[in-house]
Amino acid sequence: MRILKEALESIKPAYEDKVVDSWKRLDSLTKPIASLGELECIAAKMAGITGNILNETEKKNIIIMCADNGVVEEGVSSCPQKLTHIVSNNFTRGITAVNALSRVAKADLTVVDIGIVTDIDNPKIINKKFRYSTDNMVKGPAMSREDVIKAIEIGIEIVDKLVEEGVDILGTGEMGIGNTTTSAAIISVLSGIDVELVTGKGAALTDNQFENKKRVIKKAIEVNNPDKNDVIDVMAKLGGLDIAGLCGCFIGAAKNRVPILIDGIISSTAALCAYKLHKDVKDFMFPSHLSAEPGAVYVMKELGLNPMLNLRFRCGEGTGCAVGFQIVDTALYMMRTMGTFDDAGIVTDYLIEMR
Amino acid sequence: MRILKEALESIKPAYEDKVVDSWKRLDSLTKPIASLGELECIAAKMAGITGNILNETEKKNIIIMCADNGVVEEGVSSCPQKLTHIVSNNFTRGITAVNALSRVAKADLTVVDIGIVTDIDNPKIINKKFRYSTDNMVKGPAMSREDVIKAIEIGIEIVDKLVEEGVDILGTGEMGIGNTTTSAAIISVLSGIDVELVTGKGAALTDNQFENKKRVIKKAIEVNNPDKNDVIDVMAKLGGLDIAGLCGCFIGAAKNRVPILIDGIISSTAALCAYKLHKDVKDFMFPSHLSAEPGAVYVMKELGLNPMLNLRFRCGEGTGCAVGFQIVDTALYMMRTMGTFDDAGIVTDYLIEMR
Repeated sequence: MRILKEALESIKPAYEDKVVDSWKRLDSLTKPIASLGELECIAAKMAGITGNILNETEKKNIIIMCADNGVVEEGVSSCPQKLTHIVSNNFTRGITAVNALSRVAKADLTVVDIGIVTDIDNPKIINKKFRYSTDNMVKGPAMSREDVIKAIEIGIEIVDKLVEEGVDILGTGEMGIGNTTTSAAIISVLSGIDVELVTGKGAALTDNQFENKKRVIKKAIEVNNPDKNDVIDVMAKLGGLDIAGLCGCFIGAAKNRVPILIDGIISSTAALCAYKLHKDVKDFMFPSHLSAEPGAVYVMKELGLNPMLNLRFRCGEGTGCAVGFQIVDTALYMMRTMGTFDDAGIVTDYLIEMR
Repeated sequence: MRILKEALESIKPAYEDKVVDSWKRLDSLTKPIASLGELECIAAKMAGITGNILNETEKKNIIIMCADNGVVEEGVSSCPQKLTHIVSNNFTRGITAVNALSRVAKADLTVVDIGIVTDIDNPKIINKKFRYSTDNMVKGPAMSREDVIKAIEIGIEIVDKLVEEGVDILGTGEMGIGNTTTSAAIISVLSGIDVELVTGKGAALTDNQFENKKRVIKKAIEVNNPDKNDVIDVMAKLGGLDIAGLCGCFIGAAKNRVPILIDGIISSTAALCAYKLHKDVKDFMFPSHLSAEPGAVYVMKELGLNPMLNLRFRCGEGTGCAVGFQIVDTALYMMRTMGTFDDAGIVTDYLIEMR
């Protein structure tokens, strides 16, 4: 609890004066005011994080939290649980989707076992397992409050270490069969939106399986009766270890004043949990893409963030962050290299009209 | 007319068998089926264009059509007309938005004067001017049918030349004060959507100027009474030389079987015109971003295309294409380098379940 408490206490909001200075510079660049939309917002937000107007995020890292979920015994997934183990291993073999996409962005991966149900003998995976999977949330809480806090603190400490190693920007990813189920359950409770609206078909469910998934989520909420104003309670009763771990990453990023990208629906859920723990965490978050899972829209609305990409991903793993890094890089490069109205020979009277 | 006629006659649709083969490969890659959404669609569409399953678009070029619009004398723009000249020049000085963004994507620019109202003495700009600006469309047709065809053919020939020089992928951009007005007019007629719904504030209009802009567009449509089933007529009466030139670029890309990106609202309008001239042109188009101009949604709907980026750009110049190139590159890299289920140690029974 100490690590989480200290992290939350140390979080400071964006440097608002630097954001203002950034907008002054952005408005002096040779383009109609605000015409580069989200790209300008990214550049200004980054200044609020680092305190510098001009930024560059050279060293990138995507943290992938891997864990299993007890609720899979209710048949909520079309995939066998063993895939959590297999795919987690494959992240270290360079053959998965996030491997391909992160090579384009020149991003490294940090793969963390935070509760896979089986032991993995792979030195490239950071072993932070303190329990094997969560329990089945239909039969009671998925885990204890202490477990949630432990998982959050693992996320914080992993970010601390990466920042110490010089990482400039973070991404978030996960692997865990059943985790669109836990995410939908948490979103429904925290946002007060009906389970029917926030639940999607995950990897590929049949209509019958999909109906079952929604029934299971409703039952888990009913059985556990989580307190929506106590996010630790919600995560303990309905959550996954991956979600709690990623929640810690968002808190850790804010604590260390390092930008962090949100990925798909699971990462978005973790971002929402972190935001509920400390509002200022939002100042450090960049949403990468809008997940094809229906709950994503509600989370983005709640966070007040606009995803950069519209690629209908529903892959997880951090794939959206890998692509999103390129957009952030582009925004920062634009800020560093675009000419000003002075350079452009557009004299003051035009400048005023252009504004 | 011969160049346009021959180009249209030579356009063949996508290689459907190659698209099918691409999807087979995509479905064998180690990820849930279709979970990389639009990225997978891009990779498959590219195969339909080139006839190869694995592709790489090394040499990139954004064609920027620069022209003036007679309608600016109605006060439809917040910018002085001279900016067309100044900014067109600045494209060759490396200081504009599209310069910065295209450097990130390693794309070259081809700047074309296709009707700027003043002469430009700049050897880096291709001089294809055959008239100075269009006429004011509120007082009659913006130009003749012959002018439209001439401008389209200029676009085709520029693409022919770039392809001859080895360009693998094209982007489209423009500069022309008043061209969100001409675009909204054309979209309204071709899509049958009310002027009120498709017209936006362009660079930065006041509310009064915005109301005037919509009045002007309505009047231009009323005065000219264009035939919505004759796209050349619509372009002649309401168009810009930039739109007609870009329309030619889309036709030229299809003729040469080279992928071409759609940029913002002006480029989207040109894409719609090209599509109306030959349906198969669509097989070669990739929409980059959804422009903040309200007409963009209708054009994308009419074309049945999903923009990759959600960045609220309203800059034009080809800025969206410059960023879009990175997404296309990422899609093609994913296709070339991702592992298959065989590589992944995911045996057949899992594979089936994963599907």
